[in-house]
Amino acid sequence: MASMAGVAAAVGNQLKRPARLQRSIAMADDAVISYVKAHEQENLTELFEFLRIPSVSAQPAKHGKDIERAASMLASMMRSAGVENVELVKTPGNAIVYGDWLHAGPNAPTVLLYGHYDVQPPEPLDLWTTPAFEPTLRDGRIYARGSTDDKGQVHAQIKAIEAHLKTTGKLPINVKFFYEGEEEVGSKNLDEAIEAHKQRLACDVVLISDTAQKGENDPAITYSLRGLIYFQVDVTGPNSDLHSGTWGGALANPNEALVQALAKVKDAKTGKVKIPGFYDNVKVTPAERAALKKSGMSEAALKKAMGITALWGEKGYTGSERTTLRPTFEINGIYGGYQGDGAKTVIPSHAHAKVSMRLVAGQDASKIQKNFVKFLKTQFLPGVDVKVTQLSQGYGAKVPLDHPAVQAAARALQQAYGKKPYYLAEGGSIPVVATFQKVLGVDTVLMGFGGHDENAHAPNEFFRVANYHRGTQAVARFFSEVAKERL
Amino acid sequence: MASMAGVAAAVGNQLKRPARLQRSIAMADDAVISYVKAHEQENLTELFEFLRIPSVSAQPAKHGKDIERAASMLASMMRSAGVENVELVKTPGNAIVYGDWLHAGPNAPTVLLYGHYDVQPPEPLDLWTTPAFEPTLRDGRIYARGSTDDKGQVHAQIKAIEAHLKTTGKLPINVKFFYEGEEEVGSKNLDEAIEAHKQRLACDVVLISDTAQKGENDPAITYSLRGLIYFQVDVTGPNSDLHSGTWGGALANPNEALVQALAKVKDAKTGKVKIPGFYDNVKVTPAERAALKKSGMSEAALKKAMGITALWGEKGYTGSERTTLRPTFEINGIYGGYQGDGAKTVIPSHAHAKVSMRLVAGQDASKIQKNFVKFLKTQFLPGVDVKVTQLSQGYGAKVPLDHPAVQAAARALQQAYGKKPYYLAEGGSIPVVATFQKVLGVDTVLMGFGGHDENAHAPNEFFRVANYHRGTQAVARFFSEVAKERL
Repeated sequence: MASMAGVAAAVGNQLKRPARLQRSIAMADDAVISYVKAHEQENLTELFEFLRIPSVSAQPAKHGKDIERAASMLASMMRSAGVENVELVKTPGNAIVYGDWLHAGPNAPTVLLYGHYDVQPPEPLDLWTTPAFEPTLRDGRIYARGSTDDKGQVHAQIKAIEAHLKTTGKLPINVKFFYEGEEEVGSKNLDEAIEAHKQRLACDVVLISDTAQKGENDPAITYSLRGLIYFQVDVTGPNSDLHSGTWGGALANPNEALVQALAKVKDAKTGKVKIPGFYDNVKVTPAERAALKKSGMSEAALKKAMGITALWGEKGYTGSERTTLRPTFEINGIYGGYQGDGAKTVIPSHAHAKVSMRLVAGQDASKIQKNFVKFLKTQFLPGVDVKVTQLSQGYGAKVPLDHPAVQAAARALQQAYGKKPYYLAEGGSIPVVATFQKVLGVDTVLMGFGGHDENAHAPNEFFRVANYHRGTQAVARFFSEVAKERL
Repeated sequence: MASMAGVAAAVGNQLKRPARLQRSIAMADDAVISYVKAHEQENLTELFEFLRIPSVSAQPAKHGKDIERAASMLASMMRSAGVENVELVKTPGNAIVYGDWLHAGPNAPTVLLYGHYDVQPPEPLDLWTTPAFEPTLRDGRIYARGSTDDKGQVHAQIKAIEAHLKTTGKLPINVKFFYEGEEEVGSKNLDEAIEAHKQRLACDVVLISDTAQKGENDPAITYSLRGLIYFQVDVTGPNSDLHSGTWGGALANPNEALVQALAKVKDAKTGKVKIPGFYDNVKVTPAERAALKKSGMSEAALKKAMGITALWGEKGYTGSERTTLRPTFEINGIYGGYQGDGAKTVIPSHAHAKVSMRLVAGQDASKIQKNFVKFLKTQFLPGVDVKVTQLSQGYGAKVPLDHPAVQAAARALQQAYGKKPYYLAEGGSIPVVATFQKVLGVDTVLMGFGGHDENAHAPNEFFRVANYHRGTQAVARFFSEVAKERL
């Protein structure tokens, strides 16, 4: 975490512009914000249309066409906003939606906007109060899959651009858009696309709106993200499901073999992950712990939010630390044998699990992946075959708090929300942040408008209407504020 | 296992009847067997009709009506065969089909026939070569759910009765029928029904045809059965599915909690079940081990049959011993979190397992049930709620080998198959055997015609046509043979 001295120094980067120009920008800003406010209902209607498209990237057989529809609609919304050179960039998977507006002049900074138009699967469907893909306004919230993650936030970015272009006919900065459709399935074609379009994507900073605020009315900038590696584990035992009476006792039941192996990955007493080298280069500084104590959720708040009576995890760290600054291992799914009503006395032929690890800055995702596969395979009982397939890989990342664009975002949020933002360490993953650092050599401002309670990957996902509108204003103001900085 | 001296002594029980009566019985038997042989095609056609009814007791919402249809059809087949007083006996669950024929005189023995008309769920459907409820004759096998377990064997019993009554107009013994419709869901109303109808069910011995032969052409009598206790385990964690990035690390994931707890039930090194008192009164004698070495499958045969490269289980016992004379713990089903295509980064709100134990004669099912629930509940990580529901309970049982009815069955099998039967210890459960011993005070002859390879609880269940026909003959001959014994 950047020191306060660093932050103070960063303010010195702000350009001293002539007073008349400053006034002119301020007047233009007023018009832009007025435009946003006047179009709130219209924006919401268009967002609802966008949310109705079930662009579930994890289910290509069922939703491949919906992914295409979502990309097309995104492109046409960008064109309507005044974005130029809008194009669906082909990848081996889902298209990336590119666009730009580059008439702010060579001295103005260039901001790359990244987001994603794909969404998580909606299952289990019966837990939704209203259908996942029929957006519903209830208690000031937009209920729909993708509302907060990430279609609502992407839409706020576009509407911010539109507000500038429709009122002043220009933007104070150059912008480029790069919206992908595979974020929820590990962005498997993204790194290659960024590498391939490296020149076209050249920029000074990236802006992503796919993170959460500190609270309903407390804006935030996220400075730390966890990476993600995700695996499918397939265990094969006997050549057919077997009668557990006839055969039980003779062989390692694939369910039993899977349970025994997975139980070895984490120490049930200490909560430590036992994969060799897992904690190499994982460092949590006293300064980070102190900052997190201020911005993070208390143990009581965590318990209340999740509706559980006790927290559990890695010994020696608080709940907030374990969800942000510490890596984890989770069993996201497990399935084998009979799942129907009543009893079936079967030993299944197969058993499966989906497991993932959240990694922090410093951890080598490639090395940990190798160590995990090697470690896990040795934990199985005899007589079963095990296949481990990697489904995604992304590194963790940290962004310097004293970056001038971060400070521009802080001012924009203060203007839009009337209060200073918090600086957050986030437990989730936006692996592209590490890629942008590596390939384009630029940092990313993570200015998001979601909430941790908004069920991003669960039934009844929602996005607060007020933050959708304030977010649109904040992005619009960010363009003006970042124009004042030397990047 | 009864000693050979005991078996020899048992032969002495056979009644010395006048030679003329002996000849008359023999001539009648020839007519009965000729009748069975002449009606093979007709019997098969009727059995197919019976198998078409998807009487899946584990899925009452879907198949409740089919259960009723199967009971009705069974009753009318019994009536057509000449059985009297046929009646659907109501229970709080599925009806029991009762019937009798009691005109053999007070000195003739009374045999109670038990079987079940309900079947296992057919899932997973896509693994069936031909539909589960469209019986198909292929390679001398009847492929259908319920063909071998137990509709085909029940049908053989009825056709054996019919052969006697249609040729001689009488039976050499008195018979009573007691066919239930909840065997595959733990016979939860059976014990109470037997208790309630204790007087009506009074008999000298029970005959059950729901076990396997030693081999395709090797008949067998089963003398040892395992009991079964079956549980549903439901784990509840957070109040909603959670994003594993946002919340991962703070809480015990229900999947993880379930895996850690289940892993503690069995020792991964020794294969021993760690529930306190689990092995109390479990005894395997050197004589039993020696007998099993002769009749049981070899390690190589077990591996080949299951298609696995290595056996695994309780240290110190052979594969055959572990599947018959030793108790086991199995995870029959496990499920929690995401199971679809690709990746979903979720921490589920719930996780579930279906687990069961096979118990041997001597083990106290009630005590083990209590100990298991108590033991399991203490193995869970903090912050999750655990509910353990017992779905069925049955004790293991052994039947004396020197019982005269067992010896009558041995002669009947030798006549039908042309060779002496093996005496088998069976890994599966027919808990009613223990109930008959307890409530009616009688032993049970387990003379079954199935095969261990016939996928009783798996896709592509089948029953060998030749054994269906020979089984019908063996039951018909058993009635004549048991009539010669003092019971």
